[in-house]
Amino acid sequence: MKYTHHNNELNSSHLNQEVYLKGWVAKNRNLGGLMFIDLRDRFGITQLVVKPENAYYETALKIKNEYVIEAKGVVIKRESINKGINTGDIEVEVTELTILSSAENPPIIISNDTDALEDTRLKYRYLDLRRPVMQNFMIKRHQITQAIRQTLVDEGFYELETPILGKSTPEGARDYLVPSRLYPGTFYALPQSPQIYKQLFMIAGFEKYFQVARCFRDEDLRADRQPEFTQIDIEASFVEQIDVQELVEKVMVNTFKKVLNVEVQRPFIQMSYQEAMEKYGTDKPDMRYELLIKDYSHFFKTIDVPFFNDRDFVKGLLVENGSHLTRKNIDALTDIVKKNHGEALAYVKNSDGIISGSIVKFMSESEQDALGLKQGDILFLVPGSFDRVSSALGALRIAIANEFKLIPNDVYKFLWVVDWPLLEYNEEEQRYYAKHHPFTAPVDPEVLKNNPKEAMAKAYDIVLNGYEIGGGSIRIHNQEVQRLMFDTLGLTKEDVAHRFGFFVDALKYGTPPHGGLALGLDRVVMLMTNTSNIKDVVAFPKTQSAKDMMMQAPSDVDQIQLDELQLKVGK
Amino acid sequence: MKYTHHNNELNSSHLNQEVYLKGWVAKNRNLGGLMFIDLRDRFGITQLVVKPENAYYETALKIKNEYVIEAKGVVIKRESINKGINTGDIEVEVTELTILSSAENPPIIISNDTDALEDTRLKYRYLDLRRPVMQNFMIKRHQITQAIRQTLVDEGFYELETPILGKSTPEGARDYLVPSRLYPGTFYALPQSPQIYKQLFMIAGFEKYFQVARCFRDEDLRADRQPEFTQIDIEASFVEQIDVQELVEKVMVNTFKKVLNVEVQRPFIQMSYQEAMEKYGTDKPDMRYELLIKDYSHFFKTIDVPFFNDRDFVKGLLVENGSHLTRKNIDALTDIVKKNHGEALAYVKNSDGIISGSIVKFMSESEQDALGLKQGDILFLVPGSFDRVSSALGALRIAIANEFKLIPNDVYKFLWVVDWPLLEYNEEEQRYYAKHHPFTAPVDPEVLKNNPKEAMAKAYDIVLNGYEIGGGSIRIHNQEVQRLMFDTLGLTKEDVAHRFGFFVDALKYGTPPHGGLALGLDRVVMLMTNTSNIKDVVAFPKTQSAKDMMMQAPSDVDQIQLDELQLKVGK
Repeated sequence: MKYTHHNNELNSSHLNQEVYLKGWVAKNRNLGGLMFIDLRDRFGITQLVVKPENAYYETALKIKNEYVIEAKGVVIKRESINKGINTGDIEVEVTELTILSSAENPPIIISNDTDALEDTRLKYRYLDLRRPVMQNFMIKRHQITQAIRQTLVDEGFYELETPILGKSTPEGARDYLVPSRLYPGTFYALPQSPQIYKQLFMIAGFEKYFQVARCFRDEDLRADRQPEFTQIDIEASFVEQIDVQELVEKVMVNTFKKVLNVEVQRPFIQMSYQEAMEKYGTDKPDMRYELLIKDYSHFFKTIDVPFFNDRDFVKGLLVENGSHLTRKNIDALTDIVKKNHGEALAYVKNSDGIISGSIVKFMSESEQDALGLKQGDILFLVPGSFDRVSSALGALRIAIANEFKLIPNDVYKFLWVVDWPLLEYNEEEQRYYAKHHPFTAPVDPEVLKNNPKEAMAKAYDIVLNGYEIGGGSIRIHNQEVQRLMFDTLGLTKEDVAHRFGFFVDALKYGTPPHGGLALGLDRVVMLMTNTSNIKDVVAFPKTQSAKDMMMQAPSDVDQIQLDELQLKVGK
Repeated sequence: MKYTHHNNELNSSHLNQEVYLKGWVAKNRNLGGLMFIDLRDRFGITQLVVKPENAYYETALKIKNEYVIEAKGVVIKRESINKGINTGDIEVEVTELTILSSAENPPIIISNDTDALEDTRLKYRYLDLRRPVMQNFMIKRHQITQAIRQTLVDEGFYELETPILGKSTPEGARDYLVPSRLYPGTFYALPQSPQIYKQLFMIAGFEKYFQVARCFRDEDLRADRQPEFTQIDIEASFVEQIDVQELVEKVMVNTFKKVLNVEVQRPFIQMSYQEAMEKYGTDKPDMRYELLIKDYSHFFKTIDVPFFNDRDFVKGLLVENGSHLTRKNIDALTDIVKKNHGEALAYVKNSDGIISGSIVKFMSESEQDALGLKQGDILFLVPGSFDRVSSALGALRIAIANEFKLIPNDVYKFLWVVDWPLLEYNEEEQRYYAKHHPFTAPVDPEVLKNNPKEAMAKAYDIVLNGYEIGGGSIRIHNQEVQRLMFDTLGLTKEDVAHRFGFFVDALKYGTPPHGGLALGLDRVVMLMTNTSNIKDVVAFPKTQSAKDMMMQAPSDVDQIQLDELQLKVGK
């Protein structure tokens, strides 16, 4: 089937040409006997017109929305120009018309705006994806993936594939399991990431590897998570942190230029984990606006405010022109603080020179003045431990930025968060966890050995507009250090042998220094297409309860399938 | 870490330059006090020399094979030139030397030739992959994948991702299942191919889709199969068979040119399924050599040869200069015939004008002459049904081609096998199976309805050097025809509703005519790299019993994991 043009291409320069088009009927109407048809394909819309005297007029009368048709015709000037579309200057007077496929009335309207429920959209995903806005998300995803790949290939990276049927090594998230038929009672696991494989590629001497890798986590899902997701998995040998960072910056700069025609400045800002937590209350600060967290701990140590004077920290956010916030506004913000582990939210404000607020009664006038509030200022304060105060004020900062519209549109602010602690101590389980993962290299193995709490990691996260879009590290390439790390994490020799034995083994045959990073493709696409719903950028996503609404998966299987696997269902 | 050159780059033009290299120690030897080190990276080898007076000589003495080192030095002329490597004119006189990583003696030798057992190679895959020949397989795979992708992107195809966690729709091969934790007793299935998803992309209006797609089949494995494999999955709307074929030919021509610098001629030969079976005894003929099957059925109908005269078919292969074959040779060929469903292998030969052979005694002299055997000819004959004769002679043809070295090296012969029957009747189960899959369009739906046995398919396979490297078809895009197809396959309305309900549903909302093809990437890479072992072109393959020898997967899992899934193991 040969067509002369896509439906976004024709304009006045094609007048009187004979053209051959195909597509879906986006709209059709009968105006004084003339049939007008908006013909849509993945590129755009062209208006067809069929006159009553045309031999195909009867065919045209049968046509309904979403029919698939092909048409021959001649490009003519249009009476009423439509500036909304590329082809708005012309229309095509039909000489031949064929219906390729009929269509029932679709359960969701095929247009950018939809009021369909998400469940309906997911059930009829093939129609939801027909909406131009959704097509654009997918096309952008394609373009972004190609652009990222192109830079990596140009930089000498090999795209290599790793298995999906791997081994279960639970550490961190929950694995999806796949029962083996040939060895009943044993299981494969779907990879949470190709971490070990990519390190083995380095040991095997490939030096530069990447993969657009599917990863799986059987977690209770949050709004921006899917049970399967795609990461751009990168690893290189003979590199240090700066080499990986430079590479990833190049990748992002080229991708933004190619896909969005946006110039991103290099090098990206760097900030230590400690500074991020102190000033932004999060390890993924949104740098598109200021509004830094300030430390009032010393100040309140000397003042007799209940719940303030005996807490480790009192920190706050000073919001200019925020004194007009109502009680209701502040209650909503208090809820956010409490949901994010803050014990309380206090405030002090200056309205027309009058200082008021929940804790003012405990402060002398000079103490109030010492806060330095200008007319219109409101100061929010949260007391407590460093972690809880940071978490609460981090969340409050975002809520206030939204409330006060501090976030500029179409601005992309990259940030490297660096200088991470290697470990995190879990008080409940009385053990250390790896802050990134157990293959991350310590800055100094001696500190890991003697004072694990203080050990720093050669780790770096890349953050875009408040989202962590990637995490990476220089890896341990020494068998002894790897053993020490597992040891510190409380893994027994048997655990290590059983789960990672072959990997620890592999390290001893000449492992080059190496490191890498993984970019969350879904998040990158989400941010670059300006949507806040990860499902918009995944062709066939699952619900928050990991269901495929279209296919109805997961589903029952035949008893014979379970018998072959020697599996029984039941508690 | 910054290095000035890879280890394949230096030559006489770099004399006296200071260079900075890194890599693995491929070889090291002490000749009269001088230490020579062959330094290897993924590109090649450079010889380092360390003199006894050098401050780093002590370091050099510590170095063993497979140590990872970096070295600074000066390029000097080499005394004994090595023409086997790019850098054979020079060596690097070391000024600084650092050991980055030590290495124990590896269990397999890191060189192109290996006598290691396959199990050992798979267990230490990271070392096996370090061998230059294996690196080359992986690098070629990378290049082939990029070349295929590039053509598809240039042709306007979008690379779109489909889920790995899908729904079990057993029809054909066995699914791998993934138990759901949130809905105990239900399962996802890993896709055998993205067939339904890619058709949904067409319904959704994407028009041109491809994916480098991981697919899974829980089959008893043959030598050239893996439980997971990669296919280049392609689908397009508004196409006919010729459009898909032209596209795929372009893809292959460009890929061979880019990766192997081989010019492949277009268009590829076309042959009907019927002709392939008749003349080559297989649906994937190797076109690199002639040796066609000849039909002697009529001839033997008139002659009283036992087991020949009452069989439907007697067909044969005439081998020139084959009369010298020994009894032992012929016994071996008879075994092949029997293994491939042939009931017997007879032969007639002409040695120095004397006609002899197993059936000669049943033939008159004039009947013997009528066979027209020239001096040195041997004619192999197999009696039986069409299917059994074809299968036996197809296998015999390959065996003879190997025996007589009829297969030229470095020749690539593509072939389209077309005009396939739509269905295959299984006598045992008394039902039809789809020859390709149930979404393949019939040439004429009326024939499917009234005389399914005779129905032909709009299907096409692409064959290279006797391997099926891809299969495709124009798909059914009409709901009624799809229902008719399921009906003919004996699926009940309930079956259809349960397994494919949403898909049949989807067809009614304006489905464009569409079709596509899937290329088996692993096989393409295997053929382009001239290996006969599919494991050579998969980074981390599994054994024939679907085991990962390196990771030891599948493996036991913790009881808590099974409890969460509410699963019990046992008959």
